[in-house]
Amino acid sequence: MTLSVPLTREHFERLDRDDPLSACRARFDLPEGEIYLDGNSLGAMPAHVPARIEKVLKEEWAHGLIRSWNDADWYPAPQRTGAKIAKLIGAQAHEVIVADSTSINLFKVLVAATRMQPGRKVILAEKGNFPTDVYIAAGVAELTGCELRCVEPDEVLDALNDSVAILSLTQVNFKSGRRYDMAAITARAHEVGALVVWDLCHSAGAMPIELNGANADFAVGCGYKYLNGGPGAPAFVFVAERHIAHVRQPLTGWHGHAKPFDFTHEYAPHPTIDRMLVGTAPQLGVLALEAALEVFEGVDMQVLRKKSVALCDLFIQLCDEQLLGLGVELRTPRDAEQRGSQVSLAHAEAYPVMQALIARGVVGDFRAPDILRFGFTPLYTRYVDVWDSVEALREILHSAEWNRPEFIARKSVT
Amino acid sequence: MTLSVPLTREHFERLDRDDPLSACRARFDLPEGEIYLDGNSLGAMPAHVPARIEKVLKEEWAHGLIRSWNDADWYPAPQRTGAKIAKLIGAQAHEVIVADSTSINLFKVLVAATRMQPGRKVILAEKGNFPTDVYIAAGVAELTGCELRCVEPDEVLDALNDSVAILSLTQVNFKSGRRYDMAAITARAHEVGALVVWDLCHSAGAMPIELNGANADFAVGCGYKYLNGGPGAPAFVFVAERHIAHVRQPLTGWHGHAKPFDFTHEYAPHPTIDRMLVGTAPQLGVLALEAALEVFEGVDMQVLRKKSVALCDLFIQLCDEQLLGLGVELRTPRDAEQRGSQVSLAHAEAYPVMQALIARGVVGDFRAPDILRFGFTPLYTRYVDVWDSVEALREILHSAEWNRPEFIARKSVT
Repeated sequence: MTLSVPLTREHFERLDRDDPLSACRARFDLPEGEIYLDGNSLGAMPAHVPARIEKVLKEEWAHGLIRSWNDADWYPAPQRTGAKIAKLIGAQAHEVIVADSTSINLFKVLVAATRMQPGRKVILAEKGNFPTDVYIAAGVAELTGCELRCVEPDEVLDALNDSVAILSLTQVNFKSGRRYDMAAITARAHEVGALVVWDLCHSAGAMPIELNGANADFAVGCGYKYLNGGPGAPAFVFVAERHIAHVRQPLTGWHGHAKPFDFTHEYAPHPTIDRMLVGTAPQLGVLALEAALEVFEGVDMQVLRKKSVALCDLFIQLCDEQLLGLGVELRTPRDAEQRGSQVSLAHAEAYPVMQALIARGVVGDFRAPDILRFGFTPLYTRYVDVWDSVEALREILHSAEWNRPEFIARKSVT
Repeated sequence: MTLSVPLTREHFERLDRDDPLSACRARFDLPEGEIYLDGNSLGAMPAHVPARIEKVLKEEWAHGLIRSWNDADWYPAPQRTGAKIAKLIGAQAHEVIVADSTSINLFKVLVAATRMQPGRKVILAEKGNFPTDVYIAAGVAELTGCELRCVEPDEVLDALNDSVAILSLTQVNFKSGRRYDMAAITARAHEVGALVVWDLCHSAGAMPIELNGANADFAVGCGYKYLNGGPGAPAFVFVAERHIAHVRQPLTGWHGHAKPFDFTHEYAPHPTIDRMLVGTAPQLGVLALEAALEVFEGVDMQVLRKKSVALCDLFIQLCDEQLLGLGVELRTPRDAEQRGSQVSLAHAEAYPVMQALIARGVVGDFRAPDILRFGFTPLYTRYVDVWDSVEALREILHSAEWNRPEFIARKSVT
């Protein structure tokens, strides 16, 4: 987006009036008077979730009791919710299931993928990926006798060769917001015989994703960021249809069994995506996530992406105009094609600056050591939020408002 | 308990009037007019849980948003809830943490324990254990190059020798209700140098447990049975203090890291029980479980056990008196010392018999192929429930009321 006139707040108000997604904001329960730019850490609450959960508790659990596994359709909730997510990530309904956490799902698919690649011993991953991805891959490498090889993001293609069993990447980097070309990288990996695992934590729900269009093998992702499933919401896992019958994941719990309620002594994996399940599904989390996904009903993901790009472009443009000389450096690609739905700025005092912003009601995120991270969630972020947040940031930096004891003091965890 | 006079319903009413735990029933929201004897499958809902969860949703998530990880103390919820469970199982607060599912926690401790036993290659387990325990152990054996050896429950002691790395047992069997002597078996296992993993799914919250009194090494257990945490509530894991610093579990996710928010590239396990964490804790489930545990406040577990034994003894006695010649066979030990808090009866038509019981408002459980399972949860089960449930069972068997199409037809899952 390029604009020839200087930007004003009125311009942003007009963009909000013309926004085809503007009605979606009312689907969320948001705090009054705040600008929430941290939906890529914890998505906002869809307004109808409490009523759904109240019914789950007071009717289905309290009065239906054990019968609700059948009568309230608790059993198929992981499959049902997976099918809803499938629509957002370019997968078929039977290729996605909700289970456990992203870390655990990554463990499952990495071990399963190494078993499909006898004779290959390298798990190729990227430096600077979200740490749990690297930690889990290291754990898998140790257990399976593989080697974990981590390279810089721009060295990934060159590092692909016929020793690589698995390429494990996150589509959008948690810190920089940099986005990989899923289709091109997957194609190149397949040329050398590697399988690819995509982590969609920072892309699912934030943009159109075409897993099958990219011929992806495996994917995992988070329920509590752009999918708005609530704190610690369960994660999802995708296995391409062609792989499902061959996947042997190592967490062989009873809910992944072909016939869990036959209580047989021998494990036999379920013939479908259900084999990715382990224990009993965390129903409160699954049902909250299922309800939360209703906010995507009727939303064209291309329209959502268009707004996301516009929000990020405008934020960058305003930063360029307003924050000149204030010690801020853009760390997210300017090219929208190489970007997710966030903008990251580096600043030497990023921690207290973010605390000062939060105190003013602009909630972004700090990422060590020096990143101010702003997530743009097109379903509830307004254009004026972009204007107001850069304005707040400008004032804080200009007046050194961040330089107060209460902002500098670190909280135990951030 | 022996009684010299024939039992009458009045006798059970009197026992309820004299029951020191009778007031605890009001702590639960139970369906009117039903007898719930399936708390060992899904515990009943503590009445105050919905209000707690409503606050979590409408205040902490919706308005606190990301700040609630600190401000609403979400981060320490797994530790805090683990500490509450520790009191019920004879552990120290810092030895127990809430995480993931029982199956996943079992995977963690089994792999960790094999790593502590170099040179030993046998995982010893029992035939007839809850299937997920056997499935997970088989998965661990395959990954670690160990051998899974399953023996009959009464052959366990004889099978212990210096090739055994780990003995993995469930304290109370899910089907028969048979209970192991935790202290004696742990002592014998230690004599041959084996580590012991106890699954407490069918004992935690149902009786006093003394993990440290028995010198136990590891334990796992379920949050949704006798702990009443709700459907698919997160599970817990215990690591004895002497082992914590040496445990290297394989699911090396970021929440088990020494400094998760430093986002370092190398995994370094947290020095405490926190190293058993993997991904972000499923907060709705953890906070519901934490709230649910309040029903144990002020409850003396010895008093609870005494009532549990009385309920089971009386149930068995009534079955002996009332069900003679009706094709029912007791499958739970008569000796309370060898028993958990359930009574299992075998009947050739157990499935439709249980359906007929449920239709009469007596909710027990069917376990394939022929088990009627009745769980006695002393916090909310009344003595008259024992009388009324056996009476219902007698009428159903006597009149062959179970032999109706609607009871014989199998539901998809039971």
